[in-house]
Amino acid sequence: MRTNIIDPPTTRIDAAAMAADHRRSIRQYESTPIPQADLTELLRLAARAPSAFNAQPWRFVVVQDPALKAALSAAAYGQQQILRAPATIVLYSDMVDALDRMPDSMHPDMPQDKRDAGVESFRATFANQSEAERETWGQAQANIALGYLLLLAESKGYATSPMLGFQPEKVKTLLGLPEHVRIPALVAIGYPAEEGFRPHRLPIETLMDFR
Amino acid sequence: MRTNIIDPPTTRIDAAAMAADHRRSIRQYESTPIPQADLTELLRLAARAPSAFNAQPWRFVVVQDPALKAALSAAAYGQQQILRAPATIVLYSDMVDALDRMPDSMHPDMPQDKRDAGVESFRATFANQSEAERETWGQAQANIALGYLLLLAESKGYATSPMLGFQPEKVKTLLGLPEHVRIPALVAIGYPAEEGFRPHRLPIETLMDFR
Repeated sequence: MRTNIIDPPTTRIDAAAMAADHRRSIRQYESTPIPQADLTELLRLAARAPSAFNAQPWRFVVVQDPALKAALSAAAYGQQQILRAPATIVLYSDMVDALDRMPDSMHPDMPQDKRDAGVESFRATFANQSEAERETWGQAQANIALGYLLLLAESKGYATSPMLGFQPEKVKTLLGLPEHVRIPALVAIGYPAEEGFRPHRLPIETLMDFR
Repeated sequence: MRTNIIDPPTTRIDAAAMAADHRRSIRQYESTPIPQADLTELLRLAARAPSAFNAQPWRFVVVQDPALKAALSAAAYGQQQILRAPATIVLYSDMVDALDRMPDSMHPDMPQDKRDAGVESFRATFANQSEAERETWGQAQANIALGYLLLLAESKGYATSPMLGFQPEKVKTLLGLPEHVRIPALVAIGYPAEEGFRPHRLPIETLMDFR
């Protein structure tokens, strides 16, 4: 019997670090769906990611309908995890929409003249770019939110499988997305039904330099 | 005096979600340095991010030397947070190095013939691309690690300020980086000495769609 009650040591457990260390691609999923409110909260958090000019060019389509999942899988060379996971998040970027919404992206605490100048500056940056240049930029920015999404999902106990092997034009047609958008990744998500493989990475010492 | 010792409720505190909600750009820093071992651990975790083909094209230079920080700030249009923060991480992507290291990027648990085929497939993907196409692809992939890095730093109690306004050619010359690399962002990092502004984002309802 314990006679002394001692406070536990105040070591902070870093759940984000644990998620980064543990996360791996999962291809087998329980059929249990993730409630829409929980998926919405996950996407809300992923969309907290920072972006240049606060442009937030990322957009999400969550595919849960069985027939649509089957069609999406077909557009992704038959990848089975789309059928097995209860949901697949189609992450796309849309700079036309981001440019349209720029007034709403400016911080409401800023005075109106500074907000107007911010919108002007953002639009001027892209005015002389081709559609391809602009959308390529937006697609790269969307990957910041992809990093957030994958780490946050793991931290919440969901498994994920990001996919880059798919036919973007077919996916756009299937979902009725505009021609100009880009699709950085499809992300199957659900509760894991396999251990998966431990991730392998290059030794960090070979990737960094202190000056 | 308590007579019953009750277990605390098992509500899981999601530190990653808290970090996503709280993170904001900080431009004023305490002078306290972050120990090199802690920065190394942060970069190790950021480099756990997934990438297509497990290419891991991200590389990091951590600038702490005062004279080099001053020169880096000058190459970033005089941005003061580089001078104020104890360290600035230069995140760059290098597809030439990623292609070279591809044999080490393949999973050691895979049989040798599959590893060889993986390297071959990766190199074939880029064989007919121009240097610009290849490096643009690597730069976009590096933003997945940027998302990881910013969220993990916040979770560990560090403040960050990602910067896109700089002259990449000057930064490369300063650090002796090859001409072909890309620099997705400079990230000032340290302990915060200001509250910063609450982040503002578009309502998630305007960015997502359930099917």
